Amino acid sequence: MHVVLPDGKKLEFDHAANGLEVAAAIGPRLAQDAVAIKVQGELKDLLSPLEDGADVSIVTKKNIEEIPGFFRHTLAHVMAQAVREFYGARGHEANTIKMGVGPAIENGFYYDFDLPEPLRAEDLPEIEKIMNDIITRDLKLSRKEVTRAEALQEFGYDPYKVELINDLPEDEVLTFYVQEGFTDLCRGPHVPRTGVIPRHFKLMSTSGAYWRGSEKNPMMQRVYGVAFGTKQELDNYLHMLEEAKRRDHRKIGKDLELFFTSEVIGPGLPLWLPNGATIRRELERFIVDLELRQGYQHVYTPQMAKTELYKISGHWDHYQEDMFPVMKIDQEELVLRPMNCPHHIQIYKHTQRSYRDLPIKIAELGTMYRFEQSGELTGLSRVRSMTLNDAHIFVRPDQIQAEFKKVVELVRDVYEILGFKEYKWRLSLRDPEDTEKYFQDDEMWNSAEAQLRQALDDMGLEYYESPGDAAFYGPKLDVQVKSALGKDETISTVQLDFLLPQKFELEYVNEESGRSRPVMIHRGIISTMERMTAFLIENCAGDFPFWLAPEQVRVVPIADRHLEYAQQVEAELRKHDLRAKVDDGGERMNAKIRNAELRKVPFVLIVGDQEAEKQELSVRERHKGERKNVPLAELVQELAGRYRNRTL
Amino acid sequence: MHVVLPDGKKLEFDHAANGLEVAAAIGPRLAQDAVAIKVQGELKDLLSPLEDGADVSIVTKKNIEEIPGFFRHTLAHVMAQAVREFYGARGHEANTIKMGVGPAIENGFYYDFDLPEPLRAEDLPEIEKIMNDIITRDLKLSRKEVTRAEALQEFGYDPYKVELINDLPEDEVLTFYVQEGFTDLCRGPHVPRTGVIPRHFKLMSTSGAYWRGSEKNPMMQRVYGVAFGTKQELDNYLHMLEEAKRRDHRKIGKDLELFFTSEVIGPGLPLWLPNGATIRRELERFIVDLELRQGYQHVYTPQMAKTELYKISGHWDHYQEDMFPVMKIDQEELVLRPMNCPHHIQIYKHTQRSYRDLPIKIAELGTMYRFEQSGELTGLSRVRSMTLNDAHIFVRPDQIQAEFKKVVELVRDVYEILGFKEYKWRLSLRDPEDTEKYFQDDEMWNSAEAQLRQALDDMGLEYYESPGDAAFYGPKLDVQVKSALGKDETISTVQLDFLLPQKFELEYVNEESGRSRPVMIHRGIISTMERMTAFLIENCAGDFPFWLAPEQVRVVPIADRHLEYAQQVEAELRKHDLRAKVDDGGERMNAKIRNAELRKVPFVLIVGDQEAEKQELSVRERHKGERKNVPLAELVQELAGRYRNRTL
Repeated sequence: MHVVLPDGKKLEFDHAANGLEVAAAIGPRLAQDAVAIKVQGELKDLLSPLEDGADVSIVTKKNIEEIPGFFRHTLAHVMAQAVREFYGARGHEANTIKMGVGPAIENGFYYDFDLPEPLRAEDLPEIEKIMNDIITRDLKLSRKEVTRAEALQEFGYDPYKVELINDLPEDEVLTFYVQEGFTDLCRGPHVPRTGVIPRHFKLMSTSGAYWRGSEKNPMMQRVYGVAFGTKQELDNYLHMLEEAKRRDHRKIGKDLELFFTSEVIGPGLPLWLPNGATIRRELERFIVDLELRQGYQHVYTPQMAKTELYKISGHWDHYQEDMFPVMKIDQEELVLRPMNCPHHIQIYKHTQRSYRDLPIKIAELGTMYRFEQSGELTGLSRVRSMTLNDAHIFVRPDQIQAEFKKVVELVRDVYEILGFKEYKWRLSLRDPEDTEKYFQDDEMWNSAEAQLRQALDDMGLEYYESPGDAAFYGPKLDVQVKSALGKDETISTVQLDFLLPQKFELEYVNEESGRSRPVMIHRGIISTMERMTAFLIENCAGDFPFWLAPEQVRVVPIADRHLEYAQQVEAELRKHDLRAKVDDGGERMNAKIRNAELRKVPFVLIVGDQEAEKQELSVRERHKGERKNVPLAELVQELAGRYRNRTL
Repeated sequence: MHVVLPDGKKLEFDHAANGLEVAAAIGPRLAQDAVAIKVQGELKDLLSPLEDGADVSIVTKKNIEEIPGFFRHTLAHVMAQAVREFYGARGHEANTIKMGVGPAIENGFYYDFDLPEPLRAEDLPEIEKIMNDIITRDLKLSRKEVTRAEALQEFGYDPYKVELINDLPEDEVLTFYVQEGFTDLCRGPHVPRTGVIPRHFKLMSTSGAYWRGSEKNPMMQRVYGVAFGTKQELDNYLHMLEEAKRRDHRKIGKDLELFFTSEVIGPGLPLWLPNGATIRRELERFIVDLELRQGYQHVYTPQMAKTELYKISGHWDHYQEDMFPVMKIDQEELVLRPMNCPHHIQIYKHTQRSYRDLPIKIAELGTMYRFEQSGELTGLSRVRSMTLNDAHIFVRPDQIQAEFKKVVELVRDVYEILGFKEYKWRLSLRDPEDTEKYFQDDEMWNSAEAQLRQALDDMGLEYYESPGDAAFYGPKLDVQVKSALGKDETISTVQLDFLLPQKFELEYVNEESGRSRPVMIHRGIISTMERMTAFLIENCAGDFPFWLAPEQVRVVPIADRHLEYAQQVEAELRKHDLRAKVDDGGERMNAKIRNAELRKVPFVLIVGDQEAEKQELSVRERHKGERKNVPLAELVQELAGRYRNRTL
């Protein structure tokens, strides 16, 4: 057999050589530096046999960051070996360490163990030390094809490995990866020796993990680590984790008393404490007022319906497993709604509509219910009951573009107020390779996609197209906001729907007194109150914009004799519905200021003799600094205006 | 035997005489005028035997209005006789008319029939005519005791009467009331002859009614009439019915497009159309803002919980049949909440509370669910899902009176804005005769009742006490508002509760750093949004106060050339979030004004050449009259101020 090098040179071998042999054939120095091989442009490890005639090129350790999957995988083996040595040093036989699987994953690796005694968090540095030692030992890895019998003999002591071996298909080639002191049943890929592994890794945690993910199986102990090609990458990642922890909406939600869940009420059903409820109420009124001014008609509809409604809409057939259980009452079957659209359709159908009435924009803060597995529930971001800033715009076909543009403008207006600066418009289209997945109507799709594209082009909006991300029933525009952690989250969405109007036989009287079918635009601007609040918390790390802050102003009297003036200040602010509070506790001024800072109150007003006498204030604005001798009336006007205008 | 007359005179009889005989013994003129007899102060009919030694006095027909139950009952017999004659005249045998029961009821009477062919609504005037004829015939009634055999012989042809006879207890004395041409099994009481019946009656309707009220039994035809002692009373009553019909919130809800229910969504689950939703939103914001200013802390809590929560609260044991069915999800049993209190208790329990933190006022627009039989559901007033203006105030025992007073003040403030002028304060106390029914703690009851009484006395409030109307767990104050139809409806309620704090083991840290138990005050000010809206609709017959009106202002351009100015006016008003709309339709001005009046729009602004030129308006205020040459800026200020201040 032969392989072809990048310069076109052929290298001949008398057996199925692997990458390591190719590198060695080129030169001993390259064999020493090689970490992987590109075969027909695809990365392979150096230990697997190559195919005859393959175009190959060697990857060396200076490009190690290109093969994170390889060294992370090898790190999993190194960690397993380290764990063995750790327990060996403590007098445990090697065959008392049983192991599940140990893959490379995004950002790192893990291995699941069944150990003679549990590994403690404080053991991890020791394991890391042994891992570093194994790297220093620069152990060579090799790959070995084995028979099933050989594999079973090697791992006879380990019921997990035995189960894995027995579950492999008859014709599967079994392979071991072997290094001195450690052998694993493994498909690779790996780096060729432990010495090339970058030392930029860290063991993060141990946790319980069911064997093969099923709670019917025994619980194993998973040791999880992160690993990168460079120190910079590792540092960035660890910093990002710190940030994520600092900004975690569950932690801030607890610290600032925003919400909680109660064991006796149930998982996924958060209770909004007064502080969190204030944020939600402000968000709700903000979006409702804005929508009313834009001609939306707000409604209230029941949070349940007969199952019949969802049989017509199609949710019953396609969405039932995400719905709550049916409630039988009288002869009826009622179910909590998973979406608001069918209810808004009933509002549309309630009376005859004329072409002159359209567009009709039905909006609601619509509470709905989704069944989520309790394991998937998280704080406010994954819940079972949620309230969506929902609207459905019923339009004539000739109104699609104009209304679509108005929604885009609304999104921009709202983001400006919310302070979202980095966001991307994603036009989600039908997958042209797989049109079967979608509502069948080529003409509709072509026209709808062209119209949305046209509208976006008209507005001069930068957007990107994402084939395959359309809804079943039509194309949509998703708005993806970059979070403080750098992740894109879809917050707003505008979807065209030709299907529900058909299923519910929606009509309007057209100009010729005939009947035409409207098109529906589903749109959500600020998403659910739960999700938006979670997003805002994480984005501003609890430093809410002034208009959203649960407590906007804290008034701190320097001494008891300033209490009266402090209360006057509070009263003046409250006349404008500003959320102000005097700290009349027994602590010293500095402690009071610190407390206000811990609660992230945007304004702290300090009042002493001079302030009381001159009706002035000493103003500390969070993250902005201090202003002295500010006249009370002036500050009240300033804050009332900021609140009213929702100035950031 | 003898009876004693009002002047002390004794009348002797040699048999058990009846009232008619007593009257005859006094004089023939009295015998002619007599309609009933008072025996020991109690009204009896003239046909039943009197007891020996009774003090009696005769009631004559000039006081006929004192015995409505008597003549209404006789009218039921007269109607039945008239129905027989009606069918007889159409060739039906008397024994083909079968009859259920025919009692006197509040305001009238009815009789249930099983007829050879159904009576039609248009037959009722003919029946009334025959009834008037029977009155003219002045038929004498007599009372006859019969044996069961005699009774069965008389009514053998009528399975309903046979069933009634057979169901009577063995020792029951059976009586017939007999008039010429008609005999009925009946206990009375009746007037002595048809001639004394006041002719102020009216047959209202026929409807289906199951025999003995059970849907397993055959359907009978119920003919229902109203009857009064004077023409004035009848007229008032019929007028009240007309008014009730005119003000029926279901009718107005339809006419003004406020709400509707949908077959496919389910009974008792109204959908609020944009107009109704506007009223609800205004009410919600009004009460929430007011409560926030009063130191209430608004929260949002889930509309369901595990059944466990209601087992602790006691709802599960005492209230389960009013609750929706359980939803089983994972291992949990979830149920829609019938009340919000247990959720607010979770908010209280979420953190440790100190005596300094109390009172804590947790408020919510709390949506909850009650199972009501579908037959009992009505518009917005009896529904299965409702949103309550709810709050729970957690107080120290020494704070009960002060907080109770604040709630009473809040009720007064709210009623002033809502324009409720006539209302009564009812202090609902434990029934001292039947203390078993209540939470057992005499000391608590005595103290609580005394405290509420004291608070009301301190405030100089006129109130009345109603023993037996307390809640199970404590005394309460109910506020009963007189509706436009003159009925008292309980709108607000303030309840003391010592029981739930005990069941949920609520605590606060007291001044001695020990643990004390708070008291809960449950209070609702504007009731549920559904009930309040229904009440308001009926009370103002759709003429909502300006701040609540779904459409506040309609702008009517006289000709097309005034459209531009009309739109300017609309835009100016909308800057203040006033709900204004230009009527740009093709109709003439007068038709447009009429349309606005039909929709009960409070302000109609008419704009023509002069108005457009001078930036003025011609203003028509509903029920108030017209103002000409009002400067636009002035009117905008006036209306914005009225809206902001919720001026009636």
